[in-house]
Amino acid sequence: MEKALTQLGNLIYDQIENSEFPWIHMQSRSTDNILYDPDLRQYILGPRMIRRHSRNIRHIRPFTQMVWTAWFTKELVSLRKTSTLREVYYSARGQADIEFAGQQESDNIITDLEVALNKPREEFHVFPEERSAIFGDLTIEYTVPGYEGRRMNLTDHPDGVMIGPALTSSEFVETSADKVLVVEKGAMFTRLVEERAHDKFNAILVHTAGQSPRATRGIIHRLNKDHKLPVYIFTDGDPWGVHIAMVIISGSANAAHLRGLATPDAKWIGVWGTDIIDYKLPTEPLTAFDHKRLHELKADPRYKGDLWQHELDIFLKIERKAELEAFSQYGLTYIVDEYLPAKLES
Amino acid sequence: MEKALTQLGNLIYDQIENSEFPWIHMQSRSTDNILYDPDLRQYILGPRMIRRHSRNIRHIRPFTQMVWTAWFTKELVSLRKTSTLREVYYSARGQADIEFAGQQESDNIITDLEVALNKPREEFHVFPEERSAIFGDLTIEYTVPGYEGRRMNLTDHPDGVMIGPALTSSEFVETSADKVLVVEKGAMFTRLVEERAHDKFNAILVHTAGQSPRATRGIIHRLNKDHKLPVYIFTDGDPWGVHIAMVIISGSANAAHLRGLATPDAKWIGVWGTDIIDYKLPTEPLTAFDHKRLHELKADPRYKGDLWQHELDIFLKIERKAELEAFSQYGLTYIVDEYLPAKLES
Repeated sequence: MEKALTQLGNLIYDQIENSEFPWIHMQSRSTDNILYDPDLRQYILGPRMIRRHSRNIRHIRPFTQMVWTAWFTKELVSLRKTSTLREVYYSARGQADIEFAGQQESDNIITDLEVALNKPREEFHVFPEERSAIFGDLTIEYTVPGYEGRRMNLTDHPDGVMIGPALTSSEFVETSADKVLVVEKGAMFTRLVEERAHDKFNAILVHTAGQSPRATRGIIHRLNKDHKLPVYIFTDGDPWGVHIAMVIISGSANAAHLRGLATPDAKWIGVWGTDIIDYKLPTEPLTAFDHKRLHELKADPRYKGDLWQHELDIFLKIERKAELEAFSQYGLTYIVDEYLPAKLES
Repeated sequence: MEKALTQLGNLIYDQIENSEFPWIHMQSRSTDNILYDPDLRQYILGPRMIRRHSRNIRHIRPFTQMVWTAWFTKELVSLRKTSTLREVYYSARGQADIEFAGQQESDNIITDLEVALNKPREEFHVFPEERSAIFGDLTIEYTVPGYEGRRMNLTDHPDGVMIGPALTSSEFVETSADKVLVVEKGAMFTRLVEERAHDKFNAILVHTAGQSPRATRGIIHRLNKDHKLPVYIFTDGDPWGVHIAMVIISGSANAAHLRGLATPDAKWIGVWGTDIIDYKLPTEPLTAFDHKRLHELKADPRYKGDLWQHELDIFLKIERKAELEAFSQYGLTYIVDEYLPAKLES
């Protein structure tokens, strides 16, 4: 990573030495250049390129901000420190010459840098707050300072192991698991750990804490791609739950410039609209907001498959939604003893 | 805990065998019975008692709900399982005879059970979603099934160790730390771990993830009371941050029936209004909502000390607030190298 940032710096130095106004060439992130790629099964950036040029008066501000951000992240990487979007913004404010109107502008420049370098910001050490967790038989080896070469097995802490910079940058050494089970909620994650679902299903359990942070999507991708583990996603039965699954499977439009986050072969196994009917789950009525969202999803190219359209239609037809915890009405262990085995089999 | 629930059950059986309509005696939780105790330095319930009586037609519903909830939690405790407020609600819905209008009613009954038994719900195995974390030299010994007697040191995972049922129920075996440093945000927690603040300050680091969950407040209390470690709390410099500190220090009105959660000797060390001025921090203007909240806090009995009133006044006077991350403007390590040492000294 340090090399990519150094190269970017060298490029700019060379341009200056050649008496050119420095510029950076990168893919356009404008909406009309974001396409859904049916082969890759994720959003990608189209072929249109832009040149951010310091000769152009309207480009000087973002150009300067981007060069400063590249310098700052180069420092992070070489000092082996991590940071967050928010800290980067405040760090910039502390530098007399670099101005940002607000955090939004700073976040935007970090995305530009991702596009220019073709790498997610985690690789240049800018992380979100950790909230998600993982549990199961996976031995990792740390690479963070002070822990190099130390190993940990992810069953060691039965509350689940937090996914932060140390876990994200670790090597996955070995696992006896043969699948990954992803849930959106901490309560269900704790239930699965307690019912020893990792043993019963021979699975690594991942808890996304709502919309999955990118680091967590990266880990799911690695487990699927490098370790050949099939991935099953289990969310609330409502448009928000469905979309948590979809973003893991097909990525999000605003990460269209990145690879290594989507897991197109992951399967959404519930809670489906069909399950609400088949299992007679306790439900809540759809809100106007849920309605609007379901119609948006129906029009989204990622949802064009039959299963998706069918399940979205069922939510709209029954006018109801259900949470993961709704299975508790059949007893706390029903979900592990009955529902998940049935779903994994089908 | 199983004993307390069995006693409650026996009491009701005895009443029935004596041909009485069963009833439960408990402290009133109505607002006029919640008092601030200046000696205990926390909110407490006053002396007024109520009798929930199955002879009274208006009491039959909550009485029945409470008996069912006691039965359910007795099952949890004896099966050594944990659950959440939400799961308890759905479990009740699955029982044909127990009706709840919504989760609010169910949550309320669980609080009644806490009052009747004089124990926090965590002791009868009803937990919130885990989101908070801890890091530092503290060796714990698990008591959860499958892990009995196993030990872990809380420096083992450098992203921080999640605070869930397993950590909450563990024994604290030994620590070389001489203080506890509590922060409200994951980003600052990661910063402190990365800068080895646990070594530099010989501290156990706790991350509350916003308003501290009760399990986390219980852990802070134990570290202070049983292990004699002074506690320092470090939050955003705004009315919400101040109040995160205050709830750790003096408890909340809706936990007035519980002991073992407040840590009256904990100190709020920043970010103060004074710090915003002294350290020339980047700030945001107060919103109308912040204003209203500051005036509410000024009138709250927990805030009657001089330091609190003075700092609340400063926020109002300068009309600004600042986040923890604002210190990044002086470099990422400033907070650990300069600010915290200065604060801990004073």
